Amino acid sequence: MQLTGIGEFGLIRKIRKELGKIQEKGVVVGIGDDAAALEIEGGKLTLLTTDTLVEDVHFRWDYASSFEVGWKSLAVNVSDIAAMGGSPLYSLISLSLPSEVESFKVEDLYKGLKKAASQYKVNIIGGNIVHSPIFSITISLVGEVEKENILLRSGARKGDLIYVTGELGSSRAGLECLRNPNLKVNPKIRKFLVRKHLLPSPRLKEGRILAKEKIATAAIDISDGLVSDLLRITEESKIGATLWEEKIPFSFASEEVSKEVGISPQKWALYGGEDYELLFTVSRDKKEKIKELDFSSYLIGEIVEKEDGISLIKKESGKKIPLENKGYDHFKIIKEKA
Amino acid sequence: MQLTGIGEFGLIRKIRKELGKIQEKGVVVGIGDDAAALEIEGGKLTLLTTDTLVEDVHFRWDYASSFEVGWKSLAVNVSDIAAMGGSPLYSLISLSLPSEVESFKVEDLYKGLKKAASQYKVNIIGGNIVHSPIFSITISLVGEVEKENILLRSGARKGDLIYVTGELGSSRAGLECLRNPNLKVNPKIRKFLVRKHLLPSPRLKEGRILAKEKIATAAIDISDGLVSDLLRITEESKIGATLWEEKIPFSFASEEVSKEVGISPQKWALYGGEDYELLFTVSRDKKEKIKELDFSSYLIGEIVEKEDGISLIKKESGKKIPLENKGYDHFKIIKEKA
Repeated sequence: MQLTGIGEFGLIRKIRKELGKIQEKGVVVGIGDDAAALEIEGGKLTLLTTDTLVEDVHFRWDYASSFEVGWKSLAVNVSDIAAMGGSPLYSLISLSLPSEVESFKVEDLYKGLKKAASQYKVNIIGGNIVHSPIFSITISLVGEVEKENILLRSGARKGDLIYVTGELGSSRAGLECLRNPNLKVNPKIRKFLVRKHLLPSPRLKEGRILAKEKIATAAIDISDGLVSDLLRITEESKIGATLWEEKIPFSFASEEVSKEVGISPQKWALYGGEDYELLFTVSRDKKEKIKELDFSSYLIGEIVEKEDGISLIKKESGKKIPLENKGYDHFKIIKEKA
Repeated sequence: MQLTGIGEFGLIRKIRKELGKIQEKGVVVGIGDDAAALEIEGGKLTLLTTDTLVEDVHFRWDYASSFEVGWKSLAVNVSDIAAMGGSPLYSLISLSLPSEVESFKVEDLYKGLKKAASQYKVNIIGGNIVHSPIFSITISLVGEVEKENILLRSGARKGDLIYVTGELGSSRAGLECLRNPNLKVNPKIRKFLVRKHLLPSPRLKEGRILAKEKIATAAIDISDGLVSDLLRITEESKIGATLWEEKIPFSFASEEVSKEVGISPQKWALYGGEDYELLFTVSRDKKEKIKELDFSSYLIGEIVEKEDGISLIKKESGKKIPLENKGYDHFKIIKEKA
């Protein structure tokens, strides 16, 4: 049934049913009032983040299911909380929906949201639905972190080492597969890469460990691309950075796709975006501690003085080239996201 | 300059400058990290609400300035906090912008946001900007209220009296003036009504008084229309309601417009929406206390048993007619909002 048939009241009733009764600790008022009301534990910092996915900008319905859009929209917000070293707690969902949308599609979206909410222990406590000529979903997420453990973008210092929690470029390669269904790619690899793009797994556990063990001096999640997001750390920390190309863990799976389209997998690793790995810096004297952690990470560069700028030492030539922001800018569109 | 020229980084820099440095108490991390971080005082409930305005659905650029859109988008969220009896504290702004938007228009929007933020003591602590084929703004607002004072939709009981904090229908009449610039309306009245529509004043002070004095048993703000929002109270409180038509304070200013278009001002008072007055219920034994409060309100009906339904006693005939939900439904569009 289309939304014009079921109406806002009917849709909200279905959503409340889909989400089930919220009886989690801390939620005093959930869906169904002017605002949600929470009992937030004292002694910790409250984290607050928001992100939006727009139809035909961040995804396309011809390749993404509404379940996947639901999952991803919550996962990318969880990733922001992970990058602060925190734990997610509560979420508000704002949907903008065209009236011709079928109501089962909205229910499927909520199934994806619910799945991610259950995976990352998020309570969906409210939101709103408005009519709009195009579909979009904005999520606000509340989290918490101990004051002494918070991971900021601004804490990197000269001499710190730069790490990343996983391989880069898979999400971009997955997007390429979705855009060009005729690309000759091994079906298993294709499936792996597409999953990386549509159902990302934020590094929540890793962020918490980095925070609790007081190992990282700065952290950010890679949403717009390694270089773009590194630039955010250098800007906030007022320092420079050098990346070592040979150390950057580009995704081997993505190589099969990049070969087909004539792009180097290194380029996707540097500028691809949406891998939702954590990029973090560590004081040099904690280098050994990194190896003892419950997850692996890759050393990819070092923090230098601001005057030395942001550069990449090329693998073959050993040449140092300045890095520019060629990642995703929401307006200066160098590559499209969808 | 268009956004394609200035880019996301440039725009965010301008916005940070426009908003000024946030040094308010409680904000540990403001704009410029993965998430904002707050120190929320213990012992109170945290309120969380969100609302979206979409171009050509909730407003049109040919009659609304971006300053007004900024003001209104924050004001309608403040109204939700007012309806819970709380105080607003922190806000995240999510903008979806077409790339051809001029950057001064975004700055002007932030001037409107900043003005409302200053008026209602809200700290704008973060947000995000994405590219989109159409403009929309989603605001998330955090507030607080003492646990014992919270105003819910679900607290109305049989025998309670129903009140509203002000005249109804002005916003709808203002919208009519904006849609039909050729309507013959006194320019002063026109200006007054248009202002009511574009620059609404949420009843924050009134909500706080109702909460602190423990006078209201239930409350909601009138966004979709008196009848629509009353139905929400009856649904959540599991009761019925009777409104007395002769007591409903329809806006006299709106009468001049309604005459012109051949609609009764009572109809706009019942179904118009966007007046952002508070609709609240009061136990009958507190009827006298209402008169002693620092603001005036209008007694418009009473709560009855669920079985008696929701009805209106007509002014002239004295007949009881059942009330239906003819207000704004975001999908079952009976009247358009923009």
